Parts: sequence; C-alpha cells; structure tokens
Amino acid sequence: MTISTVSFEQHLGESAKRTEALLVSLLSGNCLPDEIARPAPLLAAMRHGTLDGGKRLRPFLVQESSALLGGDPQVAARVGSALECVHCYSLIHDDLPSMDNDDTRRGRPTVHRAFDEASAILAGDSLLTYAFDIIAAPETRLADRQKIQLVLSLSRASGMGGMAGGQSLDLAAENSAPDEAGIQTLQAMKTGALLRFACEAGAIIAGADMEDRQRLRTFGQKIGLAYQLADDLLDVKADATTLGKATGKDAARGKATLVALKGADWAEERLAALTEEAIGLLAHFGSRANTLQQTARFIAERKS
Amino acid sequence: MTISTVSFEQHLGESAKRTEALLVSLLSGNCLPDEIARPAPLLAAMRHGTLDGGKRLRPFLVQESSALLGGDPQVAARVGSALECVHCYSLIHDDLPSMDNDDTRRGRPTVHRAFDEASAILAGDSLLTYAFDIIAAPETRLADRQKIQLVLSLSRASGMGGMAGGQSLDLAAENSAPDEAGIQTLQAMKTGALLRFACEAGAIIAGADMEDRQRLRTFGQKIGLAYQLADDLLDVKADATTLGKATGKDAARGKATLVALKGADWAEERLAALTEEAIGLLAHFGSRANTLQQTARFIAERKS
Repeated sequence: MTISTVSFEQHLGESAKRTEALLVSLLSGNCLPDEIARPAPLLAAMRHGTLDGGKRLRPFLVQESSALLGGDPQVAARVGSALECVHCYSLIHDDLPSMDNDDTRRGRPTVHRAFDEASAILAGDSLLTYAFDIIAAPETRLADRQKIQLVLSLSRASGMGGMAGGQSLDLAAENSAPDEAGIQTLQAMKTGALLRFACEAGAIIAGADMEDRQRLRTFGQKIGLAYQLADDLLDVKADATTLGKATGKDAARGKATLVALKGADWAEERLAALTEEAIGLLAHFGSRANTLQQTARFIAERKS
Repeated sequence: MTISTVSFEQHLGESAKRTEALLVSLLSGNCLPDEIARPAPLLAAMRHGTLDGGKRLRPFLVQESSALLGGDPQVAARVGSALECVHCYSLIHDDLPSMDNDDTRRGRPTVHRAFDEASAILAGDSLLTYAFDIIAAPETRLADRQKIQLVLSLSRASGMGGMAGGQSLDLAAENSAPDEAGIQTLQAMKTGALLRFACEAGAIIAGADMEDRQRLRTFGQKIGLAYQLADDLLDVKADATTLGKATGKDAARGKATLVALKGADWAEERLAALTEEAIGLLAHFGSRANTLQQTARFIAERKS
C-alpha cells in the first residue's frame, strides 16, 4: 500500500465520519417540528437502516465532485446525505423477503429482521421521501434553479428509469438469461445511476457549465459500471471474512452478472479499461482531480 | 339530490376523466427516454395500481384550489397527477401482506395479487419517486421557487412527519389503545396530510400570498379530518355493495378510530362541525369558492 493510498483511505474515512454525523443529526428526534407526533418506531427503523454503515462512497463522490469545481462544502454534504438516504432505502427494500431475502447486512440484522417487514417498507419509503425534503429545505443554501435540477436528476436516477427499474430488471433476470447488453443495461440502472448522479450532483452544486457537468456525469457512469464489475468479481473471489457478507451468492441465486457470462479474466480486463477511461475524463481538470482519480482506482481495487 | 349536487358530481367526474387521461400518458411506454431500457413489468404494475381508479379527489382539490386563485390549469393538472401517484403508491404499499393484507381494491386484485410482492414494492417506490420527477420536469411550467415549495410541502406531507409516519402510528395502534388526541394525530398524518397538501398546492401554483395559502392549508386540514371520520362512519354503516369493499373491517382488525372510541353519534356531529368550519374558511373568497364548498359537503355526505 503506497503512502498516497493510505492518505486517500484516511480522507475517505474522515468524510464518512462527517457524513455519519450529519445523518445522525438529520435522523434525530429533532428532525420533525414540535407540532408533529414523532413516530418513534419508524424513526428507529430508519436509523437502523442508515447509521453505522458503509464507506459512504456516494456522499464522498458528491463532495469531491463539488469541491473540484468550487461548490459549497456544506451544500455538498447535505446533498450527499440525501443521496445516502436513497441508497439506504434501496438496501432496506432489496433485503426484504420478497426481494433478496437477506437476514444480515454489514454484520447486523437487516431492518425487517431487527423490526418487522411493515417497518422496513415504511422506513424505506420515508428515507426516499426525506431525500427530497433535505434537498428542497431552506437549510440547503442553493439557488432554487439548482435545487430543481438536483430533484429532477435524483428522481430520474432513482426511479423506474434508474435504480428501481434496474432492480425490477434484475429480479426478472433470475428467470431469464439476459445477454451482455442486457446485463450492462440493468447494472447501469441498478447500481450505476446513483453513482452517476453523485458525480453530476457535484457539478450542479458548483454551478458548472454543461460541458463539465457532462464530463462528471460520464465519469460517474464509468465508475458505476466499474463498481458493479468489481462487486461481482468480489462475490466470486473474496472470502466471506474480508467481505463481511456471504460470497458466491450471485451464482446460487442465478443472478445475471458479466463475470458469470464472460468469465473473471474478461471482467478484470474490462474493469481496468473502464477505470482508465474514467481517469482519462479527468485529465481536463489536471491535478485538482487527483482525489477523484484515486476514487476510481479505489473502486477497481477494493477488497471489500 | 339537488340540481347543484348533480352538476357538482358531473364536474368531479369530468375532472377525474382528465386526470385519468394525463396519468395514462404519464405512465405510457413513452414516459422514459429512448436510451433507457423499459422495465415493462414494473410499468405494468405501476399502471395497475394507478389507472382506472377512484374519484381522483386529490387532483380535483389541487385544480379547484388553484383555479380559485387564478393558477394555470395545466400546471395544476400535472401537480394533481403527481399527488395521485403518491396516493396510489401509499395504497399499493398499505395493501401488502405485512401491512393491511388486502386482496382486492376497487373490485380488482391488489398489485401484489395481480403481480407479486416485489413488483408491488417497486411499483410503489417508483410512483413515489415519479411524483417528484413530474413536479420538477420542464413540462411543468412553473417558477423554480414554486416548484421547490411544492417539493418541500409534498415530501413533508408524505414522509415520516406525514402520511408514512401516520401509517406507522396506525399499525402500532392495533396493539395499543390510543386516546382521542392520539387517533386524531395519526389520522391527520395518515389521511389528512395529503388532502391538506392538495389545497395548499393550489395556492402555491397560483402564487398566492401567505394568508391565502394558510387559509387553504387549514381548509385542507379540516376536510382531511372530515374525510377520515366519514370513512370510519362508512365502515360501520354502509353495506359492502355500495362501498365496493368489505365493511366492518376496522373493528375486526382492532383499528383505532374515533367512531369506535366515541360512538357514531359523536362522530356525525363532529363531521358536521368540521364541514361547517371548513366552509366558513372559504367565506373570504365569496361565490368563487362554491365548488370547494360543495367538495367539503360531498366529503361529509358521500356514500362510497
């Protein structure tokens, strides 16, 4: 591990701590005005599905993309947290018995196991809804024009033409045998769309021109595809202890992955190519984009 | 039935037809850009849970509140359809086996019966997400400032401090025994919040001042409480044929209602009082508010 890798991972870890602190505050008992009854079990389920978890890669990408183009860090932190609420809602719903039926996530019981199915469904619904509240709220100090661009991009990245549509295609693929193009499309929607939004959101927050916005959007698209390839490779190769979840599950479930269809060697090569393409898009920004470059490498090389 | 009642119901029916036509178009195969793969089963589940249904009371309230204050009818129609997507998502999720476990709605199989649970969850998620897309989209010809007010009000009316929070309190109430204030709070959140938003949205669309906005918000709040009382009274009194769904279900499920707690006579009186209070708020607008007045009476007197 080189020194720059260490400092990148420290940087990522510090960003995750700041995201965690903001999410704790956004999901505290004080997140609702006094005149509204606090549905305590619902808030507890929302916190269970959101706090203490993960690398917070999506908020990190929002923050770094925004910083690259001179966006306000506090706005980027709030938008990053909104995006993390959408990501966590999707995990809560994907884990449900009628979807992937997972009992644990990150070594803890999933929300429907810790609470019950109804609470998990409502917690996911509420986190999704809350994301739009966080973006639109006066505390997010951004012009209305930019807020509306964020609302529109986030709803399209998360909805039927993005993440939710991808999950629907993924479930259907368990009983069909999609080809390479079909798998790429469903993965671009299911996993890629939110990572693409993360990078595009940074450009929107910074008020970037359409060219830079498109550049970051394409960068996000490429690392989104890379992320899923790396994930599928990890599922085949990593041992369960490193990954913190069961491995070989994709094959057991008949999940459509490019690794299963084209082999691990092909996937390694494609992953490397995508990573170089993503990094190439950043050349325009020079050394200011070092952290985003390292993020692309981190995604390709991560072990968990 | 007086002549004015007949013409009110015709007016409501014509509005429902226009809402239906707009929803058909918003949920058609063309609702996604060409480069996005259409998740056909997801779209079919979304249509099943949204089309051919109901009086479309919420879009009607958006349209009438907006018209009262001079708002653009096309904008009001789009915002009303967005709100109907949120309403239909909530019905799809409430019907799920882990919630109310209903097999039929409006005489047809519920979404999880016609498709499966995963499709119903994803269809609800996608409808909720789509609502924000519809409001933020360029086709909704409204200033960004007003769109952000709509996004913020809708997310708060639908989320943990509104509809979803109310559903969570309602499920918890099956195992506790909330008092009058507790039931009123959960009903104001679960059913009332969206009806309140419908009326407030009209004021936002029309660019009304804070006083008129508050007036319509309070009107919406009162007819929201009235709506739920009328619903609970119908569950006790109506026969199943008129209502198109099973009756007496609230008691069988141990649902917390004011009718169960305080009796039908008390509820009738309270319903009449709320309706007069709501109508009183409209006096300020004179005869221009006739249709909203009739709507308040319709809510109190409806038989289904």
